[in-house]
Amino acid sequence: MSASSDRSKAGADFLQLSLAEAPAGGLSSWLAEQLRTAISDGRLPIGSRLPATRLLAAELDVSRGVVTEAYQRLTEDGHITANGRAGTTVVAAPLTTPPVHTQPLRAAYSGVVVSEPGLEVFDAMRAVPARLDLTPGVPDLAAFPRSAWVKAERSVLAELSAAEFGYGEPAGTPRLRRAVATWLARNRGITADPDDLIIVAGVAQALALISQVLRDEGTTELAVEDPGSLGSRQHLQSLGMVTTPIPVDSEGLRVDELRASGARVVLATPAHQFPMGVVLGGERRRQLIQWAGEGGVIVEDDYDAEHRYDRPPVPALRAMLTDRVIYLGSVSKLLAPSLRIGWMLAPPQYKPALVRAKRLADLGNASLPQLVLAELMESGALERQLRYVRRRHRERRDAVVDAITTHLPEATIHGAAAGLHLTITFAPTVDDVALARAALDLGVKTQPLSWHTQSTGPPGLVLGYAARTPADLTQAIPLIATALTQQDPLPLTQ
Amino acid sequence: MSASSDRSKAGADFLQLSLAEAPAGGLSSWLAEQLRTAISDGRLPIGSRLPATRLLAAELDVSRGVVTEAYQRLTEDGHITANGRAGTTVVAAPLTTPPVHTQPLRAAYSGVVVSEPGLEVFDAMRAVPARLDLTPGVPDLAAFPRSAWVKAERSVLAELSAAEFGYGEPAGTPRLRRAVATWLARNRGITADPDDLIIVAGVAQALALISQVLRDEGTTELAVEDPGSLGSRQHLQSLGMVTTPIPVDSEGLRVDELRASGARVVLATPAHQFPMGVVLGGERRRQLIQWAGEGGVIVEDDYDAEHRYDRPPVPALRAMLTDRVIYLGSVSKLLAPSLRIGWMLAPPQYKPALVRAKRLADLGNASLPQLVLAELMESGALERQLRYVRRRHRERRDAVVDAITTHLPEATIHGAAAGLHLTITFAPTVDDVALARAALDLGVKTQPLSWHTQSTGPPGLVLGYAARTPADLTQAIPLIATALTQQDPLPLTQ
Repeated sequence: MSASSDRSKAGADFLQLSLAEAPAGGLSSWLAEQLRTAISDGRLPIGSRLPATRLLAAELDVSRGVVTEAYQRLTEDGHITANGRAGTTVVAAPLTTPPVHTQPLRAAYSGVVVSEPGLEVFDAMRAVPARLDLTPGVPDLAAFPRSAWVKAERSVLAELSAAEFGYGEPAGTPRLRRAVATWLARNRGITADPDDLIIVAGVAQALALISQVLRDEGTTELAVEDPGSLGSRQHLQSLGMVTTPIPVDSEGLRVDELRASGARVVLATPAHQFPMGVVLGGERRRQLIQWAGEGGVIVEDDYDAEHRYDRPPVPALRAMLTDRVIYLGSVSKLLAPSLRIGWMLAPPQYKPALVRAKRLADLGNASLPQLVLAELMESGALERQLRYVRRRHRERRDAVVDAITTHLPEATIHGAAAGLHLTITFAPTVDDVALARAALDLGVKTQPLSWHTQSTGPPGLVLGYAARTPADLTQAIPLIATALTQQDPLPLTQ
Repeated sequence: MSASSDRSKAGADFLQLSLAEAPAGGLSSWLAEQLRTAISDGRLPIGSRLPATRLLAAELDVSRGVVTEAYQRLTEDGHITANGRAGTTVVAAPLTTPPVHTQPLRAAYSGVVVSEPGLEVFDAMRAVPARLDLTPGVPDLAAFPRSAWVKAERSVLAELSAAEFGYGEPAGTPRLRRAVATWLARNRGITADPDDLIIVAGVAQALALISQVLRDEGTTELAVEDPGSLGSRQHLQSLGMVTTPIPVDSEGLRVDELRASGARVVLATPAHQFPMGVVLGGERRRQLIQWAGEGGVIVEDDYDAEHRYDRPPVPALRAMLTDRVIYLGSVSKLLAPSLRIGWMLAPPQYKPALVRAKRLADLGNASLPQLVLAELMESGALERQLRYVRRRHRERRDAVVDAITTHLPEATIHGAAAGLHLTITFAPTVDDVALARAALDLGVKTQPLSWHTQSTGPPGLVLGYAARTPADLTQAIPLIATALTQQDPLPLTQ
């Protein structure tokens, strides 16, 4: 039964797996493929149980890690799920493997990639099926700590008084505000009074509340980075704000241009600029702080500050300047966007108005998930989770950078030292909307850089890598290279 | 060991409980009191485990129901909590029993009960400690199905695909919308397309979204019931709406007055008017439907429709009139306000704008709690919970009505046939703000009826009974009677 025994005789009743058919290397890949096929052809229907890794490894005479890795891959694909002691169960059939990248699956789908995207573009993009989804903005969702979450929730529910099921404080439960203050002190160098924190339903809600408070005081202009997040810009515009573009260069936001614009408030991502991934340089930082000291207000979206790989941590602006910075953070990139939990650290002059706006919006976030998150922060589970996903994200980052270097030598890589995405740019002759469309036709979902650019800039693609496996990323990049040679020769049906 | 054996010899090592000390009747009350004292004096510290009901019953030679009932009482008080197989644990010490109602505890507290309450009054009231909290608007929070919730959540998390942790649909998860549609069909006679449902963070958020959509189309006036919810009125006014009062009489909303007001939109509670508890009469219903057919819009807040005791179910207006009614419901009165989950059934002409407003507000409710709620609806657990709390609420309603009849013969009771609260009114000479203040000084928190009245009306108190035990209610009413004889003779320190 040792790893060196004659494997050609090993096998399992389960799926009639026979090691004799397995290639010499890549046992995990072989096993994953066998399982995927069995799920696909109905031999392993949805709801059926897989054997325990220990048992299957013994039957196949392989190390348990081989089986665990195969199960992990299928878990990441969303085909199976582990239920703790209840075992591992099939939950979804794989999509049919698309034909080798020659013919587009359905040309009509890629029609959602347009030059002038409207407010609904992100919903439309989400609805398009794509085998390889490199949409930026999401962490490794397969790594969500399901059992830790349930465990923390059980513990919270066991201790909760009946009154805590009633209406709570609009600014959030005191326990989560304390936990977030500790988190910010430990992880972002920010000293915050829990009373200055407002728990919100993510950064999107924070922007809505800030816009409302600014409009109430007569401010309707908000400077934004260019390139900068299309989603944020659309959101702010829909909320009635004018979004004045301020150029971003290799040192980050051009503070001289901000000053020249006359805008009084700026939305910025200093630690890891979206989408270019630039870190705001030391001199720019000083300039920005000086600008704020002269009456400016900085809305600091610290959206993925926790995710860094090859660089020292970048302190938050808020750590240096408490009175002029509205600091925003969330668990969307740390755990999952679907939790809709974020926080806003409000300077004294804005705090009462922001709390009032939160009250009017929804009376405050739901308390139970707030307390579960507090429990995960207090117990150290969230820091462990961060270390875990950081390792996984880094592997994925390495895989995508390798693949780009190999298959897309004409691309320039930006912002790969941190975060959950990177951006590649091309020569000015490339039409990045057409490129993204062609890539989508080949099953690879990306966002054209021009979506995020208000003035002119190089064409490119924004590639979210955190939610995809190294294998998927290694598959996706050559397809983008193929799309680049095609540049949308397909007749669009819409 | 039979119930008729010599109990004077029965006893338990646990707390040295001896049946010889127990009164002939009321074994449960005696046991609950022994436990309460032990928790209070530290013999049962927070975190300690109580013996299993079966074991303690055997040791004491009483029926198991005696022990279960005693545990249940302490659970309701929030002192202990049952953790399934992990047993029953002490979670909170009882407040020290206040002195017999002669001296006010702290006069300053009751200063929050003012004649002209501002937007912060509900937070301020919530912060005032009171032994007997009869604030309306909350169900029996001690009955929250903690273990069913965790079980449903574990089951949801076991099945969830990784992608479902990402950004979801602003209108809510399809699964919950289907479950709510089925719930409305079964329980409210409403046939709804799940696509017309928008999941929101409670009725408060629904009002914010509706106000925004109405303002965007140029409507800034919203007719409201008078008396009607102070909270809703303040909320709407803060959102920039003019709230035109329409009188309510014994048949409900005066539709002739609504018509005369010229308002185009009305917020109404037809099934159980807040705070008077009136059901909208048949003729009024016809008038209101006719008014809507001529261009009016009804925002129907079906806030506690599920809770009825001595009357047949009242169909929702939405069941009769789909195109002119924006229907609102939530789990705040069914499970707990702190969940912040509600729904809005939007007529076609408002649906796109309301979904857009929800997207701009927060991108959509968190998905996990939505799916847990869907699971509870689909499994029948929520209907079982409703039957369970309805029985408990009814007992409480009976207890408070009995106590009022006995101790407050001068009060007239309104709206006791359904809901989670009732309203009592007094002769016009009574100052209900002074009365509520005096009652609060005696440890009983209520809301003066005049808070909810815009024009003139009888003085009174709104009494939420659903969250209080019959014993608490039986204690609270005589204290209100005492307060009525005092009518605020205390010097206010603020």
